[in-house]
Amino acid sequence: MRILITGVDGYLGWALSIYLAKRGHKVAGIDNYLRRSWVGEMGSQSAIPIAKMAERLLAYRKNLGQNLRFYKGDLTDYNFVLNAYKSFRPEAIVYLGEMPSAPYSMIDVHHAIFTQTNNQMGTLVTLYAMREAVPDCQLVKLGTMGEYGTPNVDIPEGFFDIEYRGRKDRMMFPRQAGSWYHQSKVHDTNNVEMACRLWNLCSTDIMQGVVYGTRIDEMGEDDAIRTRFDFDQCFGTAINRFCAQAVIGLPLTPYGKGKQRRGFLPLRDSMQCLTLAIENPPESGEYRTFNQFEEVYGITELALKIQKVGAEFGLDVQIQPIENPRIEMEEHYYNPDHQHLLDLGYKPTHDMKAELQIVLKDLMRHKERIESRKEAQFPDIRWDGSRRNSVKLNKPIL
Amino acid sequence: MRILITGVDGYLGWALSIYLAKRGHKVAGIDNYLRRSWVGEMGSQSAIPIAKMAERLLAYRKNLGQNLRFYKGDLTDYNFVLNAYKSFRPEAIVYLGEMPSAPYSMIDVHHAIFTQTNNQMGTLVTLYAMREAVPDCQLVKLGTMGEYGTPNVDIPEGFFDIEYRGRKDRMMFPRQAGSWYHQSKVHDTNNVEMACRLWNLCSTDIMQGVVYGTRIDEMGEDDAIRTRFDFDQCFGTAINRFCAQAVIGLPLTPYGKGKQRRGFLPLRDSMQCLTLAIENPPESGEYRTFNQFEEVYGITELALKIQKVGAEFGLDVQIQPIENPRIEMEEHYYNPDHQHLLDLGYKPTHDMKAELQIVLKDLMRHKERIESRKEAQFPDIRWDGSRRNSVKLNKPIL
Repeated sequence: MRILITGVDGYLGWALSIYLAKRGHKVAGIDNYLRRSWVGEMGSQSAIPIAKMAERLLAYRKNLGQNLRFYKGDLTDYNFVLNAYKSFRPEAIVYLGEMPSAPYSMIDVHHAIFTQTNNQMGTLVTLYAMREAVPDCQLVKLGTMGEYGTPNVDIPEGFFDIEYRGRKDRMMFPRQAGSWYHQSKVHDTNNVEMACRLWNLCSTDIMQGVVYGTRIDEMGEDDAIRTRFDFDQCFGTAINRFCAQAVIGLPLTPYGKGKQRRGFLPLRDSMQCLTLAIENPPESGEYRTFNQFEEVYGITELALKIQKVGAEFGLDVQIQPIENPRIEMEEHYYNPDHQHLLDLGYKPTHDMKAELQIVLKDLMRHKERIESRKEAQFPDIRWDGSRRNSVKLNKPIL
Repeated sequence: MRILITGVDGYLGWALSIYLAKRGHKVAGIDNYLRRSWVGEMGSQSAIPIAKMAERLLAYRKNLGQNLRFYKGDLTDYNFVLNAYKSFRPEAIVYLGEMPSAPYSMIDVHHAIFTQTNNQMGTLVTLYAMREAVPDCQLVKLGTMGEYGTPNVDIPEGFFDIEYRGRKDRMMFPRQAGSWYHQSKVHDTNNVEMACRLWNLCSTDIMQGVVYGTRIDEMGEDDAIRTRFDFDQCFGTAINRFCAQAVIGLPLTPYGKGKQRRGFLPLRDSMQCLTLAIENPPESGEYRTFNQFEEVYGITELALKIQKVGAEFGLDVQIQPIENPRIEMEEHYYNPDHQHLLDLGYKPTHDMKAELQIVLKDLMRHKERIESRKEAQFPDIRWDGSRRNSVKLNKPIL
């Protein structure tokens, strides 16, 4: 298939471009290098060094025996996007080209506006350009499990059947996001669902959990085709920050009670799931939602796992909870469905320990890169709008 | 109270500024005259002539014995808005400053993007400026009944209690909007709810039905303080277009089957309801939703009412259904709640006939203004993205 990946220079996008080429697909990508700028703005860098796009493209060709067709440009520019679609004629578009950080969106009004306008404009441009140039193409749109928030009931995959005052309907499950970024994904979901309903486009909307991992087997050993790994307060998730902290001898810092529960999956599983969506497209006019994660863990539970794996590497890992800069429920019910991908044949890796071993091993090679930007991991962007470092809470967990 | 109205130059905003002054409130307003530009872009004009803002302000002072404090500027400009809040220190902000037309938002990708970015940016700026300058101020935010779409179950006021797989929660009722404009209001709803939840702001989110009418009693007889009345395909609602068509001897043109059902209320009731929300503010941190309409009618039913009132004025009014340029359900269940405002003391006018008599009488004075822009009422903006005039359907209803 001809598959276009937006955000191909990012963490997921770059890995997916390699995974799909190995499966024999023709791959094109769009990027404007914004992720590199945002991480720079946070005073940080990828722990794993990543090559410039020109070098990446050469290494891609060398390792995979095919070219990645690359379009440099802005996803909110309609004519640029339309021309890319017309020239590549994708059969699937995997939309990974959004600003993906909750804390970044909460910095101030300008970052809130940037996040929502950038993400919504990109989605609207995609929908219009698809309708114009490739109406039968599938849009695989990256959302987030965070769209649902943490309701006190089970979370279905996108839709649910309700009976209300004696009448029935199938409706979208209500979303309750907790940051401007997460809200931007809810807005996307609403926009994409409408475009499928009105225009007969088709889309798989992926409510993805937290992805972790430094590599997939398909990357081989060439350093020039590694994907990025961020550990700053905005673009590094809890699990990334914990791994980076473990490697440079800092205590792991769960926020608040640490009982926040989220869905997680390794990078290799994310690739497998996205590919299942791509290779098993929906019907024309169909909008479907996949909840994409492997297992649910609490945040402190994760820290304890990393502590244990760290010990195998001779790392003395402490855990020091800190004040939660976010406003969120720290203890809650959490039981989301994730059946659709299993039905399509998803085989979960089910080995977080082995994956964490690979991550720590990869990060230990680049310890000095983390060390030199270690300030960037401490959270000071607070959900109440202030900017202040989080203080330590309670005693460390030993 | 000190009340700030955004979009004070618009149909509702201008009328509300008069209504509130008559009740003894201090009123300020913000506008950038965009509504005048948009209607101009559609090749149309207000049927009722409206004065320029400078003249409006003089007439306001003359008729109401107080100044309207006017800030000219863009609601997406954070510093401008923040300074307006700091100088006026509103106790309520009535947010009527959005692009309000479904067809306008469906013209093309650029209008879709303008609609959503303009409306979302304005809302985000409002929330941030409130938090900074007037955190205890109530936001009365104008949404639309169209956010809900037409589900097959009753529509509660914003929230509902659900039982799902044996567990319970109170959640937002799922929205299902049918245009980029309506989606922009859904996005607003999600953004405003989150700001109340995270920042303890308070808001009344008004899901308003279709408002009709040319005047409120508080306007008196001075032509310089009339409010606008649009009849073009974008900014004139079905009821406005029907009244304009009746006056110039054109057949009324319901779209499709004409069995689409919507909630309606006269302008005077909208003023009464908005004022009830303003004068009975929510608690700090509270986000509440009012469904604001008086009665539900089908579109052809409305046309028949106008036909009847027209006959009293000697107008021979025909009804000629035309192809529906929209993609929407033309026959559906529709039973929305509207109890909250009644509980606060809302006394519905319950006299559509009397209101329509006033409208036709007012419009007949300005027949030539409608006549000169009559092309603007025929719909050619289609929900499938094409631009083509709707053809006649079936036989006329006599």
